[in-house]
Amino acid sequence: MSIYRLLISCPDAHGLVAKVSQFIFNQEGNIKEAHHHLDEQNKRFFMRIEIESNMACSLEEFKQAFVVLAKQYQMNWQMSDASQLKRILIMGSKSSHCVADLLHRGLENELEGKIVGLLSNHDKLKKIASWYAVDFKKVPINKESKEVDMAKMMNAVDAFAPDVIVLARYMQIIPKSMCEKYAGKIINIHHSFLPSFAGASPYKRAAERGVKLIGATCHYVTSELDEGPIIEQDVLRVNHSDSAQEMQKMGQDIEKITLAKGLQYHLQDRVLTCNNKTVVFN
Amino acid sequence: MSIYRLLISCPDAHGLVAKVSQFIFNQEGNIKEAHHHLDEQNKRFFMRIEIESNMACSLEEFKQAFVVLAKQYQMNWQMSDASQLKRILIMGSKSSHCVADLLHRGLENELEGKIVGLLSNHDKLKKIASWYAVDFKKVPINKESKEVDMAKMMNAVDAFAPDVIVLARYMQIIPKSMCEKYAGKIINIHHSFLPSFAGASPYKRAAERGVKLIGATCHYVTSELDEGPIIEQDVLRVNHSDSAQEMQKMGQDIEKITLAKGLQYHLQDRVLTCNNKTVVFN
Amino acid sequence: MSIYRLLISCPDAHGLVAKVSQFIFNQEGNIKEAHHHLDEQNKRFFMRIEIESNMACSLEEFKQAFVVLAKQYQMNWQMSDASQLKRILIMGSKSSHCVADLLHRGLENELEGKIVGLLSNHDKLKKIASWYAVDFKKVPINKESKEVDMAKMMNAVDAFAPDVIVLARYMQIIPKSMCEKYAGKIINIHHSFLPSFAGASPYKRAAERGVKLIGATCHYVTSELDEGPIIEQDVLRVNHSDSAQEMQKMGQDIEKITLAKGLQYHLQDRVLTCNNKTVVFN
Amino acid sequence: MSIYRLLISCPDAHGLVAKVSQFIFNQEGNIKEAHHHLDEQNKRFFMRIEIESNMACSLEEFKQAFVVLAKQYQMNWQMSDASQLKRILIMGSKSSHCVADLLHRGLENELEGKIVGLLSNHDKLKKIASWYAVDFKKVPINKESKEVDMAKMMNAVDAFAPDVIVLARYMQIIPKSMCEKYAGKIINIHHSFLPSFAGASPYKRAAERGVKLIGATCHYVTSELDEGPIIEQDVLRVNHSDSAQEMQKMGQDIEKITLAKGLQYHLQDRVLTCNNKTVVFN
Repeated sequence: MSIYRLLISCPDAHGLVAKVSQFIFNQEGNIKEAHHHLDEQNKRFFMRIEIESNMACSLEEFKQAFVVLAKQYQMNWQMSDASQLKRILIMGSKSSHCVADLLHRGLENELEGKIVGLLSNHDKLKKIASWYAVDFKKVPINKESKEVDMAKMMNAVDAFAPDVIVLARYMQIIPKSMCEKYAGKIINIHHSFLPSFAGASPYKRAAERGVKLIGATCHYVTSELDEGPIIEQDVLRVNHSDSAQEMQKMGQDIEKITLAKGLQYHLQDRVLTCNNKTVVFN
Repeated sequence: MSIYRLLISCPDAHGLVAKVSQFIFNQEGNIKEAHHHLDEQNKRFFMRIEIESNMACSLEEFKQAFVVLAKQYQMNWQMSDASQLKRILIMGSKSSHCVADLLHRGLENELEGKIVGLLSNHDKLKKIASWYAVDFKKVPINKESKEVDMAKMMNAVDAFAPDVIVLARYMQIIPKSMCEKYAGKIINIHHSFLPSFAGASPYKRAAERGVKLIGATCHYVTSELDEGPIIEQDVLRVNHSDSAQEMQKMGQDIEKITLAKGLQYHLQDRVLTCNNKTVVFN
Repeated sequence: MSIYRLLISCPDAHGLVAKVSQFIFNQEGNIKEAHHHLDEQNKRFFMRIEIESNMACSLEEFKQAFVVLAKQYQMNWQMSDASQLKRILIMGSKSSHCVADLLHRGLENELEGKIVGLLSNHDKLKKIASWYAVDFKKVPINKESKEVDMAKMMNAVDAFAPDVIVLARYMQIIPKSMCEKYAGKIINIHHSFLPSFAGASPYKRAAERGVKLIGATCHYVTSELDEGPIIEQDVLRVNHSDSAQEMQKMGQDIEKITLAKGLQYHLQDRVLTCNNKTVVFN
Repeated sequence: MSIYRLLISCPDAHGLVAKVSQFIFNQEGNIKEAHHHLDEQNKRFFMRIEIESNMACSLEEFKQAFVVLAKQYQMNWQMSDASQLKRILIMGSKSSHCVADLLHRGLENELEGKIVGLLSNHDKLKKIASWYAVDFKKVPINKESKEVDMAKMMNAVDAFAPDVIVLARYMQIIPKSMCEKYAGKIINIHHSFLPSFAGASPYKRAAERGVKLIGATCHYVTSELDEGPIIEQDVLRVNHSDSAQEMQKMGQDIEKITLAKGLQYHLQDRVLTCNNKTVVFN
């Protein structure tokens, strides 16, 4: 028994659901979970289907058979086998709260993915990576040699052959070429409720502005800093007695949980994007 | 162009979605929104479909055609026309916050239903009903003549021919016979986070227990007091400085909003029940 | 028995609390509730004390006696009698949700203030004002005659002799001169989680950006649009299926509650400001 | 420069704040942070003061001087030096999420305390304790020899000389004698929003009841199971598609965060108890 996940995005059309579900039925698949969304403004249809299959035909055969329908309806689509865990590369810097939280979830098999490495520009996280028996790779980034260092970093990333890259407070701006190469595969946690306080020092600016809630935003990375499609957000109540430094400490809890949540949605193929927004079928 | 809403609950079976969506396609309907849920424990399947129809055939004809499929899969089902607004009867006592909030939503056409009356055991809400031009009916309930009074109340309820009855802090226990007659059609707001503090004086008991969050619960009424299927819940942070009386005031905001939310789900045919639980497709 | 409220903001100094509480003791006052806050960055101390007094001496005498201490420590301070309810002027436009909610709270004596009037640039809210027996004044604002109209509006405002002005979705930019005249006395509800989406059409922009939470912000009005000190904020979860229009409807609930909460803090003299931020002693 | 923390609970009396703050002033202390609470029902006054002191006199001398005032007003009181970190003993079983989270906070110096040991009835957590260089002690608890085993466990606890004991999903009922010996010093995390679902299998029961929010409760342990004073609570939204098993996974995040928050309040001497309730000055 296999679980296949089918993600579809296409122009809205009459009878789409009927056609797709009939196709699955014909392949002797059973629909275990299904979500639809019609973007009325863009007249675009989104679908996610979990298919329980004891098919004779393999995932590859299933995909080949689906091509006809996909073409007919001009679908962007992907189909994956839930048992094929995605390879996760974590990138961190000195902050450990998100990294430790993800590694622990990995150890306890709570992520539907496999953490294959931790890449950092500092040594600090090496010890914790070794605890969790995760491959650690350090690539320092210096101001003076940034271009060369970033190239090394990208080579190191490629060497891990990641399906998804998690920026767990990496604190460096990702080069445009990497953003494009791994489009839709780099997930960042920003320590503010975007679009408020995009860029540097969000807690400091939140404290200065006197907001009553601070936030964290998990989003896909694009070449526009902190402007990529948002996957998940959360907030935390603060008050006048909380300094920027205290907000930073308090914020760690929503950072780590929001990142883990957004990552899990991605790992379970629950996220589609459209016009810099996400459709999250959870 | 009509919008029909199809709600289905049935034993899980292979090809269900395909069959239903094919049927809709054949009737020249278009699936505008669809939600599914498989209750794995009970092997039961739930579905809600919004169908956009410019069918020649009417709702009645559509329903008749569906009977065959419905029988084959042993479905509990209902199909309704979204333009047929449900008749809402509000029942209140002396508290006005929920009642005023609902009446105002009615006035601003924010409820997908039509408020046809306000029934109370006291005079206090009469004035506000008149403001909103809603029929007011008083049926006093006295301890000494409770049985007779309750019979009068039930007659008054029937006279409004309601599709849904909203207990907006009515404060009287609904007779079993009425619970059964209007099963799945009476919605109550309980002023606690059920199952905590079921029964009387929940804020007093919450204050005594020293909880750090208070809540409100919108649920269907059954003959078991405060034990019916929960539609919606919400909570609010409190602390040691909030007395029971202050909690009661603070709680009014989540009471009115949670009630309005649960009611709206019901009015939009988004709620199915199974084993004293709800499936809410929102 | 009277309740006096003393609000103090001053440079931090050794023995401040001792001096003030000793003074209150000497006046035969009893401290019923007290809050302190030290802004470490600005070395500024904030205090709010509720004093239970069966003093022979009046509020005026108490205030005169306090002047010596106040001067010594360079205090900004105010002392008020809790039984002297503030005069509230509501300003609205066409949206009714905040206005109706405030009027209803007024009717039920849930606001520690007295609503003395409703001023609007449209007729729509006239009926609801009459229901609640609140003085209604219409001052139309036209693009062509904005300056003259605004002058009329300000005259109308002055005529109500308000202690606090509540912009309940008034939708017009308040002239600078009025902002200054009523500095710290005009409270606005902005329909976004500021600083995100300051200015016009916040729900539309929130939907376009694809945020996962929408918000509302209650703040003091200054001459810088949507930049005044924030009193209270709240958020609400949304997802991809919620259009800008639906967000607008959903947002009404947090708008009305956040506004009422922020207003109540102000009415209870719980808010001090410092450097465009608030200290809220709740 | 030292920070002393003074916690007071006593019958309400005229001039209390003045007397205490005058005393501190006389000892050349400076009040850095102060919170008061008057429990009107029980006529009891609660106070927490953070005193910045460059006193010549030590904590001991300060305490001795305070005795006179304390007696006069029948105070329950304690004064501690903030630099004297409390000794934390963590007790766990097989679940690792709370334990790993606490150990990590310990490593990053985010807890105002010192983790001195991890005691468990199983081996599973041994490895993680060794990573964080925390003393691990296993005391198995068998049904057949429970009394003897519990005695061994209590000896092991005593050997760590803990100031506070954290039950991080320990899953065993603490003997009454231990509850009494460490009264007000044992903190538990219960995996439900108490008083709902006290006792065993709360997630299973939450799923059966069909609640729309699940919770976690951090409370002091008393000899009445899950009935001790609540320090902190939080909730998480769930829906019909979340099984008991999924709720259990989702709930881990609020369990670990709520426990850490409640523990931190305790470590910072922010919690007083009264009649099975807490006053939390945060």
